[in-house]
Amino acid sequence: MIEMKLRSQPVGISLRKRITVILVRPEKRENIGLVARNMKNTGFENLRLVNVERIDQKSYVTAVHAQEILDNIRFCKDMTDATRDIDVIFAATSRKRKNFLALSLRDAVQKIFSFPPQTKVGLLFGNERTGLTSEEMLSSNYRFIIPQVSKQPSYNLASAVLLTLFHIYASDDLKNVEITQEKPLPRKEQEECIRIILDKLEKKGFIHKTNKFHVTEMIYNLFGRLSMTAKDRKLLLAIFSKIGH
Amino acid sequence: MIEMKLRSQPVGISLRKRITVILVRPEKRENIGLVARNMKNTGFENLRLVNVERIDQKSYVTAVHAQEILDNIRFCKDMTDATRDIDVIFAATSRKRKNFLALSLRDAVQKIFSFPPQTKVGLLFGNERTGLTSEEMLSSNYRFIIPQVSKQPSYNLASAVLLTLFHIYASDDLKNVEITQEKPLPRKEQEECIRIILDKLEKKGFIHKTNKFHVTEMIYNLFGRLSMTAKDRKLLLAIFSKIGH
Repeated sequence: MIEMKLRSQPVGISLRKRITVILVRPEKRENIGLVARNMKNTGFENLRLVNVERIDQKSYVTAVHAQEILDNIRFCKDMTDATRDIDVIFAATSRKRKNFLALSLRDAVQKIFSFPPQTKVGLLFGNERTGLTSEEMLSSNYRFIIPQVSKQPSYNLASAVLLTLFHIYASDDLKNVEITQEKPLPRKEQEECIRIILDKLEKKGFIHKTNKFHVTEMIYNLFGRLSMTAKDRKLLLAIFSKIGH
Repeated sequence: MIEMKLRSQPVGISLRKRITVILVRPEKRENIGLVARNMKNTGFENLRLVNVERIDQKSYVTAVHAQEILDNIRFCKDMTDATRDIDVIFAATSRKRKNFLALSLRDAVQKIFSFPPQTKVGLLFGNERTGLTSEEMLSSNYRFIIPQVSKQPSYNLASAVLLTLFHIYASDDLKNVEITQEKPLPRKEQEECIRIILDKLEKKGFIHKTNKFHVTEMIYNLFGRLSMTAKDRKLLLAIFSKIGH
């Protein structure tokens, strides 16, 4: 059966503050409001939008009493802007991607709790019709799939956010979860390191024109899953500077 | 952490067939379609509407690929019509009601699985703004509350249905759950028995004009929670026929 022991203080202040929902190119203004309402119900407050310049009354209508979340939205011009100060990014996807491992929702939630409490976590949700593009996926450390019975239609945007947040909210007390990971570097620094590695590999001829897209995805998947710490970066850069010679 | 071991056949055919979602006086046609989509994603198919005469294109738009659920909606003229052939009814409520005990979502899901596999289960969801009236609550055996952090706004209709169905779908394998209850009588026969009891109590002066509403609710709550079997009814009617004299 489902274990759903709620904390007496259901979501610790730090968890509420350190988790950020990022909607990438959402199309319908109503959905942004519905996401805000679901965030408020489950106790979260940080919302960022990528490639949306403003919201309008339609979002406020569906948000009902969750307007303050809309008032504090951060509008981001691109993926880098949306993720640079976050330490580990989980992207929701409705289908398996060739070059990316995907966790179950349950395993993704467990992984979130395995990071130290000061780790900033981003949850990435794509456009309603297209989901996340392969390029947008490169901004994530982990991918997760919300289980469903029928392949079509996938969960709608607000539903996918709700199921994810509810499972974080309803998870067991943090005190009982063993922290097994170190705090990762901010995503921006992780990606800078990955790009250095990619450059080296390209210079060595490992990456070339015909395999570039494919290998780039695989490298992002591989080194993303490290949730790279400062120590990891140091080691990786040392290794790849050797390779470079 | 959340236990969410999925069955290899995620929802047994019988579970899919024997669970019915009942929306009472839903106001927005869009929400009916969103509920159908959420049912399809989580593997359910029986949808009934109380006090809705027809649906329209708005429902089909939001249902996306779940149209066949809309095509097979049963339109019910009242609560009795919607519940008569169902054996045990669980009503979603966002607030505690004076005369009704409420289970957590988790306990409600466990209780659903504690009935024998041939038991027909109804899930009752009220109007978007008002929820279920006290009178509509009388048609339920159990009430349950979906946990949330903020009191306002409550989950929207499609979200409440989604969280409930997802938790049923994602629950552990039925084989590992001990069946601790017998199959209840169809709800119609349970209510007939409750009304006989109420009549007896009224005749004996236990129920009178000033306490009638209050006591009626308490009696419905008490005998509803029995999930009355044929044996229970026999015993109850024997007891109350004694009292009647």
